Amino acid sequence: MISFALHGGAGASRRDRDERPQREALREIAAQAVGELRAGARALDVVQAAVERLEDCPLFNAGIGAVLTRDGRPELDAAIMDGRDRRAGAVAGVQRARSPIRLARAILERSPHLLFCGPAADALCDEYGIETVSPEFFITPLRQQQLARAQSRGSVELDHVDEADEASDEAQPTRAPEPPDDAAFGTVGAVARDNEGHLAAATSTGGLTNKQPGRIGDTPLIGAGTYADDRSVAISCTGTGESFIRACAGHALHWHCLMGGASLEQAAQAVLDDVQALGGHGGLIAIHRDGRVCLPFNTTAMYRAWLDPDGEIRVGIHPDDVA
Amino acid sequence: MISFALHGGAGASRRDRDERPQREALREIAAQAVGELRAGARALDVVQAAVERLEDCPLFNAGIGAVLTRDGRPELDAAIMDGRDRRAGAVAGVQRARSPIRLARAILERSPHLLFCGPAADALCDEYGIETVSPEFFITPLRQQQLARAQSRGSVELDHVDEADEASDEAQPTRAPEPPDDAAFGTVGAVARDNEGHLAAATSTGGLTNKQPGRIGDTPLIGAGTYADDRSVAISCTGTGESFIRACAGHALHWHCLMGGASLEQAAQAVLDDVQALGGHGGLIAIHRDGRVCLPFNTTAMYRAWLDPDGEIRVGIHPDDVA
Repeated sequence: MISFALHGGAGASRRDRDERPQREALREIAAQAVGELRAGARALDVVQAAVERLEDCPLFNAGIGAVLTRDGRPELDAAIMDGRDRRAGAVAGVQRARSPIRLARAILERSPHLLFCGPAADALCDEYGIETVSPEFFITPLRQQQLARAQSRGSVELDHVDEADEASDEAQPTRAPEPPDDAAFGTVGAVARDNEGHLAAATSTGGLTNKQPGRIGDTPLIGAGTYADDRSVAISCTGTGESFIRACAGHALHWHCLMGGASLEQAAQAVLDDVQALGGHGGLIAIHRDGRVCLPFNTTAMYRAWLDPDGEIRVGIHPDDVA
Repeated sequence: MISFALHGGAGASRRDRDERPQREALREIAAQAVGELRAGARALDVVQAAVERLEDCPLFNAGIGAVLTRDGRPELDAAIMDGRDRRAGAVAGVQRARSPIRLARAILERSPHLLFCGPAADALCDEYGIETVSPEFFITPLRQQQLARAQSRGSVELDHVDEADEASDEAQPTRAPEPPDDAAFGTVGAVARDNEGHLAAATSTGGLTNKQPGRIGDTPLIGAGTYADDRSVAISCTGTGESFIRACAGHALHWHCLMGGASLEQAAQAVLDDVQALGGHGGLIAIHRDGRVCLPFNTTAMYRAWLDPDGEIRVGIHPDDVA
């Protein structure tokens, strides 16, 4: 039995915006992944490919369209983990890797190390033959406008909910249809179970608008924002990274599933409740070793798509709008 | 009841070397920490002060005397966590903070974020009024000689055991008595329980000799090399960082202790067995919420000191030489 889920970030959303472009992108990328899994692709390859497509989509905060630091630059984080043997690769603060998740995968495959940060991480692209670009490649007008707005307010966009409530309509992106402002708080991720029962997880993000350079959130940290273990679960998180790190969200869900006793839904809710007790907001997508999927969030919206047990692709943004 | 333990790294050791300087340093720093705890100091302050002293001691691989990357530079990582509320601060790849653990503590206290890497992390020193130095401040002749030797062999010193077996006697440090070569693989850390029952953990390291710049190990990662939670345990790890990350060693011990059923010793051994199953070598120090201490390692030596239940400071390097 194959399983698949992806997310494009959690936050607040305004129902008065046209969300069709996001829904179409989520559905299309999920459908491609499910097609690959049905054709026998490995979970690890499928989550990487799905996250590469989400990075390439300017509607989400990863790769092209990532939010900007207070210096006006992108700083991209990504991690990928193979549930078969718990091998993993991750990067933090890269600015030149065309696809941060592809670089993370190369580290998983080829490095004795697991996590690299900064220019030295970008330099691995040359060693591994991975495409590089200039940092400007990732910058969209919308993100520049969001940065200017955040700086005029003197805010670091840490609070997903308040930001969207305050959001104005001034953004005029030229590169893509205008996303709701809350997409600025997104992160992208994918989890999969292939037809051999192996699990994998991948996550990629641009972090927080107007963040201090050098800040690393939960995305590239194994056991925090990203985790996969064939004995338990594959999980990818999105939200206030610091709270997900303090809760060790990924590894906490692993333990709940390994111990048994609670359903996947109960376990995921317990993890999210702990994140919230630490002041965090966000959501997660998870696939249990038995193939069950759950996608809880404590924000008012999470961009998400998954393969339903009936074989159909489902897409949702708000809690009640699954189609 | 107060408890305290510290480590100065795990690896292989040669009994034909004079280890008295290490033993004296471990005993003195442990005695200072225990004195502070007896006087009513907070666990968080005590672990920070102990790690600052270990960073200042050129015998150990952290702060002054840290090992060098293949570029001949120090890249220092550190993390600190407060068991009362799971707040934490961490830095990776810093080169200018006089004390990486002091910078991590300032981040815990003053930043909305948790983990910073690279030059941007160093830049926080100015914002927080923390002393900075030039990278050369941390470099000792011994570490330069170890780097030259590793580079002549083309090796990244990832395997703690084989390195020490091959170690030569050519090192001629001028700054401090000559440590055994295996100290090059050390990391330093401290865990404490104060008289109010609060736990804290702190870890600081220079990483691996001849490592690739930008590599981040387990030390600065909450839930991997460093973790503290008043409900369970405080833990600081040392060894092959990648395996401790994949095992989420710190958070795994937390869960074992939270679940109950096993003794602290059994739980810590289970975690270390998992690290070893993933190809890792090293050790850890841990204090249970009830005050028990354990210090297991799967290498042939771990520099360590702790407060015994009889009220005496114990110091050990090899498995059987506790004094």
